Amino acid sequence: MGKQTVLLLGATGSTGGSILEGLLSAGHYDIQILVRPSSVTKDSVKKLVERGIKVRVSDLDASESNLASVLTGIDTFISAIGPRSLLQQKTLVRAAKTAGVKRFIPCAWITIAPPKGVMLLRDEKEEIYNEIKLLSLPYTIIDVGFWYQFSFPPVPSGRVDYALSFSDTTIHAGGNAPNLLTDLRDIGRFVARIISDDRTLNRYVYTYGDVLSENEVFGIVEEVSREEVQRVYESASEIENKVHDAVSYLAENPTDPISALNAWIAQYPYSKYVRQDNQPRFAKYLGYLDARELYPDFKPVSFREYFEEVLAGKAGRVVLAEEMPSHH
Amino acid sequence: MGKQTVLLLGATGSTGGSILEGLLSAGHYDIQILVRPSSVTKDSVKKLVERGIKVRVSDLDASESNLASVLTGIDTFISAIGPRSLLQQKTLVRAAKTAGVKRFIPCAWITIAPPKGVMLLRDEKEEIYNEIKLLSLPYTIIDVGFWYQFSFPPVPSGRVDYALSFSDTTIHAGGNAPNLLTDLRDIGRFVARIISDDRTLNRYVYTYGDVLSENEVFGIVEEVSREEVQRVYESASEIENKVHDAVSYLAENPTDPISALNAWIAQYPYSKYVRQDNQPRFAKYLGYLDARELYPDFKPVSFREYFEEVLAGKAGRVVLAEEMPSHH
Repeated sequence: MGKQTVLLLGATGSTGGSILEGLLSAGHYDIQILVRPSSVTKDSVKKLVERGIKVRVSDLDASESNLASVLTGIDTFISAIGPRSLLQQKTLVRAAKTAGVKRFIPCAWITIAPPKGVMLLRDEKEEIYNEIKLLSLPYTIIDVGFWYQFSFPPVPSGRVDYALSFSDTTIHAGGNAPNLLTDLRDIGRFVARIISDDRTLNRYVYTYGDVLSENEVFGIVEEVSREEVQRVYESASEIENKVHDAVSYLAENPTDPISALNAWIAQYPYSKYVRQDNQPRFAKYLGYLDARELYPDFKPVSFREYFEEVLAGKAGRVVLAEEMPSHH
Repeated sequence: MGKQTVLLLGATGSTGGSILEGLLSAGHYDIQILVRPSSVTKDSVKKLVERGIKVRVSDLDASESNLASVLTGIDTFISAIGPRSLLQQKTLVRAAKTAGVKRFIPCAWITIAPPKGVMLLRDEKEEIYNEIKLLSLPYTIIDVGFWYQFSFPPVPSGRVDYALSFSDTTIHAGGNAPNLLTDLRDIGRFVARIISDDRTLNRYVYTYGDVLSENEVFGIVEEVSREEVQRVYESASEIENKVHDAVSYLAENPTDPISALNAWIAQYPYSKYVRQDNQPRFAKYLGYLDARELYPDFKPVSFREYFEEVLAGKAGRVVLAEEMPSHH
């Protein structure tokens, strides 16, 4: 039996980049990337080509039959498409069915949330999941909680500012909600395990390195840095009001490109801290498998280890691309 | 520990009646029924009261807090509400959460089908399932395939006409699709097992007595009756056209009471015979547990046994009430 052939969409994004590195490190995948014609000449794509990664080029709004040709011979298709393009996956789902793709990994990669009614971003993903089930296409849905890289506050000395994507010292709704957190770099390592595992076929899986509340995160940051973080407190009702305002604005201004983004940004803290959705108990209720239980030998980076790297000046800053809500 | 207290909605319907008898036979449930004020004086309800069954009375469009009072002290709530009233379960879901109901069994009781896009009846149930998940309410969803009682054709002698709810000798789309079939009377026996089983909490479960194609059903009918059944053949495209017509009519006449019914009647054969949804393989793909695997000692009535009863004149005729699509 040859290597499993994996086609990855979104390889130049943050999540997709982690997946690419994770699969390459595993060593036993034939990895190819799916790139839009407009992106072929981008430096980020060229760098991957220079590393010997095969490229398949297609518009995502190509016809189903054209996309089916593009997907021919692919065992596993992984989508790390941007949040504004989620619904473009519908044709990919149909094409994957036609092409006989053995496992379709749609764009999930977020916090645990109910299928409908809390996060617009999750609601839209549900449409894709339902399309997959309609076609009886083999799938795995992988959610990763929130990234360490977006989950630590600045410290007064400014030592960690270089690694901050945005600066935020807010404690939300009391700060005691447990949260699934994964090091961005571990996502790909988890994926490399998950896509070779029959137990995860047609199932939902969640990953994490640590489960920590905001109070615990701030505590680790203070302990490791020996600096005191000035907290800002936001109440549940303030968070709820922000959601209400952002969703109302979106309803009134559906074509304003910033309005959907603002709704996503408002709904994340509501789901994570007010509803306390992003935790193992709720994930299990929703039927998710726990990647740490599946792979007890897997050693993820802990949040403490990650933050020690940050303090040592060894962490990178995640450049917010189209695929992740920004606080700007 | 006392008996589990179960409140059943829809006890006078076909599915609800089976559930009631199954729970009574089990002997270890405190069974109560939820009845609308307008139904309290019905003979069917009076008969149940005469058998000593406790009644809770409430309008289903009562306020959430009123319904929460009605649901106080209930361990397991079972809904066998009619298909036209499915969305009335939303307030019941919220009230059950408030009242601390330990397991909510929403109205499922149908064939296996994708969550969205094939059967309008299933689509509407999905709204209730999503409401349950939104509230993190403990639940079990139980689907039963199609009933034996609606799955046999007439024979020329007329011997089985007394037991027919409608007369139909159609073989759909070749007649080879495997179908999950359950004796209506076994539904309650299955439910009595399922609601005392922690493995089924927050899961989907399917039941069946037999998995048979239409050709196999007709073969058993001919073999047991020693009569020849004249088949009528309907092709996949004829079935698809009927769906298209019924759905178009519904779109144009949303308030016509017959139009939703006609769409349901058209979509069942499409899902069962063209898409071949109603079978174990697809149920497992969708994440369902198999009740027969959970309860290997459970002896359901086989279709052959059932049809022998029919031939012996011992079967009843299912009176089509509001809860089941009729072919009239």
